[in-house]
Amino acid sequence: MKAWEKNIRKVVPYVPGEQPDKVKMVKLNTNENPYPPAPGVKRAVEEFDYERLKLYPDPTVGKLTKAIAEHHNVDADQVFVGVGSDDVIAMMFLTFFNSDKPILFPDISYSFYSVWANLFGIPFERPALDDNFRIIKEDYYRENGGIIFPNPNAPTSVYEDLELVEDILEHNRDVIVIVDEAYIDFGGRSAIELIDRYDNLMVVQTYSKSRSMAGMRIGYAVGNPVLIKYLNDAKHSFNSYTMNQTSIAFGIEAIRDEEYFRDTLAKIMATRERTKKEMAALGFMFPEPMANFIFATHEKYPAKELFEALREKDIYVRYFTAPRIDNYLRITIGTDEEMDQLIGFFKEYMK
Amino acid sequence: MKAWEKNIRKVVPYVPGEQPDKVKMVKLNTNENPYPPAPGVKRAVEEFDYERLKLYPDPTVGKLTKAIAEHHNVDADQVFVGVGSDDVIAMMFLTFFNSDKPILFPDISYSFYSVWANLFGIPFERPALDDNFRIIKEDYYRENGGIIFPNPNAPTSVYEDLELVEDILEHNRDVIVIVDEAYIDFGGRSAIELIDRYDNLMVVQTYSKSRSMAGMRIGYAVGNPVLIKYLNDAKHSFNSYTMNQTSIAFGIEAIRDEEYFRDTLAKIMATRERTKKEMAALGFMFPEPMANFIFATHEKYPAKELFEALREKDIYVRYFTAPRIDNYLRITIGTDEEMDQLIGFFKEYMK
Repeated sequence: MKAWEKNIRKVVPYVPGEQPDKVKMVKLNTNENPYPPAPGVKRAVEEFDYERLKLYPDPTVGKLTKAIAEHHNVDADQVFVGVGSDDVIAMMFLTFFNSDKPILFPDISYSFYSVWANLFGIPFERPALDDNFRIIKEDYYRENGGIIFPNPNAPTSVYEDLELVEDILEHNRDVIVIVDEAYIDFGGRSAIELIDRYDNLMVVQTYSKSRSMAGMRIGYAVGNPVLIKYLNDAKHSFNSYTMNQTSIAFGIEAIRDEEYFRDTLAKIMATRERTKKEMAALGFMFPEPMANFIFATHEKYPAKELFEALREKDIYVRYFTAPRIDNYLRITIGTDEEMDQLIGFFKEYMK
Repeated sequence: MKAWEKNIRKVVPYVPGEQPDKVKMVKLNTNENPYPPAPGVKRAVEEFDYERLKLYPDPTVGKLTKAIAEHHNVDADQVFVGVGSDDVIAMMFLTFFNSDKPILFPDISYSFYSVWANLFGIPFERPALDDNFRIIKEDYYRENGGIIFPNPNAPTSVYEDLELVEDILEHNRDVIVIVDEAYIDFGGRSAIELIDRYDNLMVVQTYSKSRSMAGMRIGYAVGNPVLIKYLNDAKHSFNSYTMNQTSIAFGIEAIRDEEYFRDTLAKIMATRERTKKEMAALGFMFPEPMANFIFATHEKYPAKELFEALREKDIYVRYFTAPRIDNYLRITIGTDEEMDQLIGFFKEYMK
């Protein structure tokens, strides 16, 4: 090892789902939305004046923050915007989790949490979900340095109702509690309604799933203005201009079109219900899905085998090797046509 | 203070130059390029298919990285791309500067360096520039945890030749040395030619100044593939998808058009030469400018007074209250027409 390597921070990075770029693929591996962004985004793209790119964007991201605040009926100072919810959560780990006590998150959960904790040297513990992949709320009554969990959970798609969220908040008034709601729009009820009662609650949402804008990288947190201010101070100590001109222009349009948003969600949820039935008929088992994916296992066919067989047909789903979930496939809800191809494959394979 | 505030990281953020949004302003305060991005960018904007936004971007930023590597005649694994050079440097502070020894950078320099150091708890020392704002290279012979300096320097516009850069490298083989070349294209010679000889050298450049793309947020580092790998590991432990679809598509076009790039630079440098003469004739003094701005002081008129008087006429320049530089204005080189307005104002004011 060279001398200059000694003081380098060495970490094991998060591994995102692969992004194959084939014309005829069926891409059900990264929980993207199969429908295009709102029509307003199309207009904003068409009308975008490229000359504006010579100027810095607004570092306060004022207009986009305001549009998001209006959508959620909160004040602009209750909203923090970042480059996808990953950026928002990374900044939160850096800003909020500086205790010697471990932060807590479920053992089966978004795999980036432990990566962030390792990057910043934050101690953590992972209380185990029960056998049905449900959170055991009593596990979060112990002393800790902060709490984060996704709701619905990833990669299980399991949703916990607001009573459980509030119970965890009630037992943790002295630390920051983050509810990561990347998938909340697919049938869940957001904890944003609790922010006025719990000044230590931060709720994170994203444009990547329900708003068909994974390619734009926009996420945000909603909560107490005091916490938002600390978060902005840290952000402006890292990179002042994170949101580029196009993110701001297109992001405003995407959140304003409520009707298109509701229509898209309804279509995905209808496809999910249909897919559930077909998969159950094929012998798959899965917890009740409340996100835009199904987390499925099969008695007879190992998940890894199915994953590889699908891949050979250019049907991409996600497979994790982690303990307890290494016999499951995480399958994104695509269009009806895409799900037909998937189901068709399974029928053929299991014949 | 609430209990949950106890473990929050509290920092004093960087304060970017203001981004006024007036129709008739003369904006010479944030070193943007007065000319639009390359024609290829215009085409890429027009041809951009908004439907692509539903998909995640390539987390490896492969095509943009390749285009940048080709421009600099290096390999793709020698290039790291981020959301502006601020993002690149922030990630470098986090990744490379983990020694107990202080990192070194000049006392008068990019003011974000100390903000990053404070954010991550990195000890630092700031050797003083000499009275002509030149780096005293011997100050960098002492033991340290890493070195960073801009060349040309900000906000002075002073350029140090590659001999000085190489001398500092020769005396610091055991730590990472970062040369921040945000302004190198306006007449300087890049240290990228030294990367094969110094495996501990990282050179940072940006699209924000010479490529008229401040609004797009693209910066990059060039250097040893081993260091680039460490940097990518840290980046993928923070946020895997930092570069959105538009940044990648437009960024590729911006770096490919060499002719437009050279033309734009020539125009700005010609305007700089003319502005120098006119300002000198008005009694301004300034170090020889080698960036797209002039760092000027006047014997008779205090900088703060001029700054405020200009502001009232919607002519924006940058003024810093820091010691040693609080009687200077940093004036971006705009179009000839914009500089005429500035010079016209000074003539009127000093009559």
